[in-house]
Amino acid sequence: MTRFARRAERVQPSAIREFLALAGQPGITSFAGGYPDPTLFPIEQLHKIYDDLLTPANASALQYTASDGTPELRALVAGRLTADGMPCAPDDVLITQGGQQGLDLVAKLFIDAGDVIVCERPTFLGALIAFNPCEPAYASVPMDDEGLDTDALEQVLRTTQRVKLIYTVPDFQNPTGRTMSLARRRRLVELADEFDVMVLEDTPYRELRYDGERLPSIKSLDTSGRVIHLGSFSKILAPGLRLGWVLAEPEIRENLSLLKLAADTQNGTLNMRAAAAYLSGFDIEAHIAGMLPTYRHQRDLMLASIEEHFPAGVRWTRPDGGLFTWVTFPEGLDTAAFQRDHLIPRAGVILVPSAPFFATEPEVNHARMSFSGVPDDRLVAGVTAMGGLLREVLA
Amino acid sequence: MTRFARRAERVQPSAIREFLALAGQPGITSFAGGYPDPTLFPIEQLHKIYDDLLTPANASALQYTASDGTPELRALVAGRLTADGMPCAPDDVLITQGGQQGLDLVAKLFIDAGDVIVCERPTFLGALIAFNPCEPAYASVPMDDEGLDTDALEQVLRTTQRVKLIYTVPDFQNPTGRTMSLARRRRLVELADEFDVMVLEDTPYRELRYDGERLPSIKSLDTSGRVIHLGSFSKILAPGLRLGWVLAEPEIRENLSLLKLAADTQNGTLNMRAAAAYLSGFDIEAHIAGMLPTYRHQRDLMLASIEEHFPAGVRWTRPDGGLFTWVTFPEGLDTAAFQRDHLIPRAGVILVPSAPFFATEPEVNHARMSFSGVPDDRLVAGVTAMGGLLREVLA
Repeated sequence: MTRFARRAERVQPSAIREFLALAGQPGITSFAGGYPDPTLFPIEQLHKIYDDLLTPANASALQYTASDGTPELRALVAGRLTADGMPCAPDDVLITQGGQQGLDLVAKLFIDAGDVIVCERPTFLGALIAFNPCEPAYASVPMDDEGLDTDALEQVLRTTQRVKLIYTVPDFQNPTGRTMSLARRRRLVELADEFDVMVLEDTPYRELRYDGERLPSIKSLDTSGRVIHLGSFSKILAPGLRLGWVLAEPEIRENLSLLKLAADTQNGTLNMRAAAAYLSGFDIEAHIAGMLPTYRHQRDLMLASIEEHFPAGVRWTRPDGGLFTWVTFPEGLDTAAFQRDHLIPRAGVILVPSAPFFATEPEVNHARMSFSGVPDDRLVAGVTAMGGLLREVLA
Repeated sequence: MTRFARRAERVQPSAIREFLALAGQPGITSFAGGYPDPTLFPIEQLHKIYDDLLTPANASALQYTASDGTPELRALVAGRLTADGMPCAPDDVLITQGGQQGLDLVAKLFIDAGDVIVCERPTFLGALIAFNPCEPAYASVPMDDEGLDTDALEQVLRTTQRVKLIYTVPDFQNPTGRTMSLARRRRLVELADEFDVMVLEDTPYRELRYDGERLPSIKSLDTSGRVIHLGSFSKILAPGLRLGWVLAEPEIRENLSLLKLAADTQNGTLNMRAAAAYLSGFDIEAHIAGMLPTYRHQRDLMLASIEEHFPAGVRWTRPDGGLFTWVTFPEGLDTAAFQRDHLIPRAGVILVPSAPFFATEPEVNHARMSFSGVPDDRLVAGVTAMGGLLREVLA
């Protein structure tokens, strides 16, 4: 049989896939998924929208449309980005099949085999999955509570050849929940200018802020057109519509559009029309504001439960938004083994062990825990049981 | 500014994009698009389906789901493929973002830069667009009224290094409308076995047959697992849902699934649920049968009008199905120039000039003309006007 292309070697089953398969099973409490809470989807409004769209007069909603996205949706997204400090025109926006496709298209446009992508340490696993078929090399930069360590970044940029792209999730990062400070955002843009590298800013959680003030996006600080900004409707509307966007300078946006056309022709017309109808006919800011108390409560409950039940020597982040906290166990604990041997069989709890979130030199003694969508009683019971097992294992 | 990856050189604006932009304008008669007729979409049934799906009890229709596609839709597609002579299980099927994504994923899995893809002469332009980012080389094989010339294919396989893939649209090919004969299909599979190359069978028009008997798919003749079969809901349900499928052997299907996950996580959940509800709750075979008279009538009207109005020396195909006829003008006529200088300004008619349909050595004296979706009076008027201009130009 004819052999696969070289890039296929870089495309391997995700280590978290087997755990996610458990997530829907009865008796399992999942802190693994990081899915938005389905009870918060604006399903009545979407019902009305699809009801209006699916009429013979609107048959064009089922037809092919422009590969960049429907003009109306591009304009509405551009309006929201402009209001968020990133002045732009509809033509600057490309609609993508969720945020994930933005990662795929940007890697295709910039990364030749062996080019270096600088990632946070840890970084979003899905981004590594998207980048890997382009056969990049990686460099990793540590984070602290202010996000990506820009001093360490400078060191990496000084000492690493062929850096093409810096990838960051500045708001409530997946997996750590950390947010990059304003000073670090400014410094990141300065360094990108100095070393002439692109920045890929990925913001799926940006609007899910429960405390504090919104920070300027990195794109809003960009004066040289080197920041590419990705966003998604998955957490603010519904992931099952698969709608995201890229904001980029014209030459970059145009080339991303050509790659989008090559990859899948276009996003679904009906869903793009529906999202535009939602943005123009309903108040998405009110909808987002209405979701925040639920997530804030779930975050607070998880952090309080962890505080109460996890043993000394365990640390965790206190995210101001998003869906995740990042838990660090004492060195020597292998989270994957702990989950396999204790957490699943003895407590029916799943989370995501840390190793696959590292682009280089994986660490095994952390876990990503999502507080989204788990009923209160199960959340408390799951954390409590996990705490008991940790005490036992760490004793 | 950081430079683009090498593959970006292979990603250029499509020559047909500027013409397609004209297609929606008043006063323009478009034979260029090849879109399905929107009056044939089952919009009432889809209205009912989305009405049922978008209820709080069905919030999972808006949530993330499996990257391979919903189990129900995979099973229903597998059932239709089995009925079409390709016995398979749900797990053998991957749901894709239209047929285009199948082309993209297969190229990614098999093609290293410089590997050769053998295409028909002419071939589907969208496939070249999908393949190009993988930086293939191409070889082209002539066609006749029985489709791909398998003697010429054998010669190419004997004399060409690094052939990885043979790409074919065997049923009512885009752009020629030609169908590969059963004898040629068998010979193609024999040659693929002999020379150990993969075959990519792309069948978006397969079910739009207006005359004659359905032929076995190439996949149904495959005994060694080297044929990958692509299909699409775009022409039998609606393109705006962006739903297609890949049928392939397990190892190939699994690797395509990993590439799908990397590219865009998954197809839209809501649209997959809707397509499954359509297939399980309505009679898609009756729906398809109900569309055929309209397309058959449009084909017959276009061929009769061409016969009546085009001058001697012009030839054209007589497709048994699909959406296209392929018109060949005398050598020396450049269709793109004819369109630009005469057809658009003097008759308001657009079609697709032939050059971009050739993977190698483009020929300029042909055109793809679609008979779909043009009202009868405009179709006749457009062909008549075109005939008059051809007489003048060829005189």
